[in-house]
Amino acid sequence: MSVSNPRLFTFSAGPSGAWTIIRQTCIVGDPLAPAARLEVTPSGATAPNDAAWALQGVTSNVRYTLASEKVELVTVQEAIGRPHATRAALIPIRKSAAWWDLSQDERRKIFEDASQHNRIGLKYLPAIARRLHHCRDLAAASPFDFLTWFDYAPEHTALFEDLVGQLRQTEEWKYVDREIDIRVEGREA
Amino acid sequence: MSVSNPRLFTFSAGPSGAWTIIRQTCIVGDPLAPAARLEVTPSGATAPNDAAWALQGVTSNVRYTLASEKVELVTVQEAIGRPHATRAALIPIRKSAAWWDLSQDERRKIFEDASQHNRIGLKYLPAIARRLHHCRDLAAASPFDFLTWFDYAPEHTALFEDLVGQLRQTEEWKYVDREIDIRVEGREA
Repeated sequence: MSVSNPRLFTFSAGPSGAWTIIRQTCIVGDPLAPAARLEVTPSGATAPNDAAWALQGVTSNVRYTLASEKVELVTVQEAIGRPHATRAALIPIRKSAAWWDLSQDERRKIFEDASQHNRIGLKYLPAIARRLHHCRDLAAASPFDFLTWFDYAPEHTALFEDLVGQLRQTEEWKYVDREIDIRVEGREA
Repeated sequence: MSVSNPRLFTFSAGPSGAWTIIRQTCIVGDPLAPAARLEVTPSGATAPNDAAWALQGVTSNVRYTLASEKVELVTVQEAIGRPHATRAALIPIRKSAAWWDLSQDERRKIFEDASQHNRIGLKYLPAIARRLHHCRDLAAASPFDFLTWFDYAPEHTALFEDLVGQLRQTEEWKYVDREIDIRVEGREA
């Protein structure tokens, strides 16, 4: 039995889980099966065994962020899991083969110069916290390339709609060929 | 049972395998157990079950290569598996936490501006073919970040020594904290 990557997280949807799924919207591509609850399991812990579906991803090094941007982000952002952040969202996305065939500078140009991905995210810090998980390079075939997990206070729900609305209008999002938006609330005691 | 990533490769060292290990040198960090033979198994095929050790990695998108460099590389490079390439090398490496904490532009500067990683590799094309596998973001904890698999004709053995010798003197290699150099020959009929 192999040891898990310490940066691995598992998102399991089904009858059990600490978060209640309040909305699940398929933005583009095939949907995921609907479920009542969501559990987020860190590396080394046991994920629910009754899940309708489970997605895995690992946090990793930054891929497009410059040193100057990293300083700005790190100064303002807060980590996932703040007690007041009782709303959360899981947004799995896949990007097209055309995206992955681009060189590093071509992808960076689209990501930031054309789409201002970091710049948009920065506007919503620290209200919206974000943790990005990569799944394209797992040993098991994954239906998504990225899982992003956000959390925020209930009063910042409209802010979060703004954030995802802006990102979906970018040049970068033309390369997103599958996206599901899963909103959850509450944590079990 | 999950389906494998189609870009997954498994390198198994032990009593069986198509390649004969002729030299195994620990360059830095902990060594790997010595073995007689090496097998390279693509996604979906069955790896030997008697291996002393097995390493997995997935091929992926380029991380530092610019569009202009990609054109140069793609024009000249040949794919792994040419019939005359009866010598090969597996070089697993791990980079330090300090490397992974750098921003994208800081890593690119070290990789190419200071170390000319692509520029050095290009000099040895098409004689030396190369396939890079990533293992840092697998779900299972991996002892290495990258597995590079090279093949070449026996008459290009000295060229290959030049190539790895040059890379090991670069600024980039100061961040390599584990490296094993495994040379193999032949293929079974």
